[in-house]
Amino acid sequence: MSNQSLEGLRSQIDAIDLELLELLNRRGKIVENIGKVKEEQGTNRYDPVRERQLLDTVRDNNEGPFSTATLQHLFKQIFKASLELQKVDNQKTLLV
Amino acid sequence: MSNQSLEGLRSQIDAIDLELLELLNRRGKIVENIGKVKEEQGTNRYDPVRERQLLDTVRDNNEGPFSTATLQHLFKQIFKASLELQKVDNQKTLLV
Repeated sequence: MSNQSLEGLRSQIDAIDLELLELLNRRGKIVENIGKVKEEQGTNRYDPVRERQLLDTVRDNNEGPFSTATLQHLFKQIFKASLELQKVDNQKTLLV
Repeated sequence: MSNQSLEGLRSQIDAIDLELLELLNRRGKIVENIGKVKEEQGTNRYDPVRERQLLDTVRDNNEGPFSTATLQHLFKQIFKASLELQKVDNQKTLLV
């Protein structure tokens, strides 16, 4: 393979990263809305049963090459960041 | 908002997570190919300049709600997992 194909592969990575970025932020917006619904309902933001379901979905749909453990670790980081997004939102609400 | 809309929002999250999973694995496959090209060329797998470029792209294209710092942290985890994927591949090669 040539340098050219390395450039080609990198272009594909660049395109995927932009898609990942867009998807993560779209996910973030939905999680913010879920936070608002839960606040109205007075239910707890953190739901370990729901998190377990999401991690099971990752396992059941993983076609590799990443191991399920690696992907579940990445998704846990995404869940953690999402939960923090809701916390910041609540703090903003308190300041108003 | 009702329970119904919480379910609707969660369905959207489920769909996004499957897309994220598919994109991450597609990214993983391309990174494996990049690893092979680099191995042929005898160049180092880890390229801090390239990683910096990717992180700058995240910053330049971030429309929120996640902070750039949070997203860059997530992408660093993805880069780390990708690099480990190449390591495992090399180990497999050695075993053959």
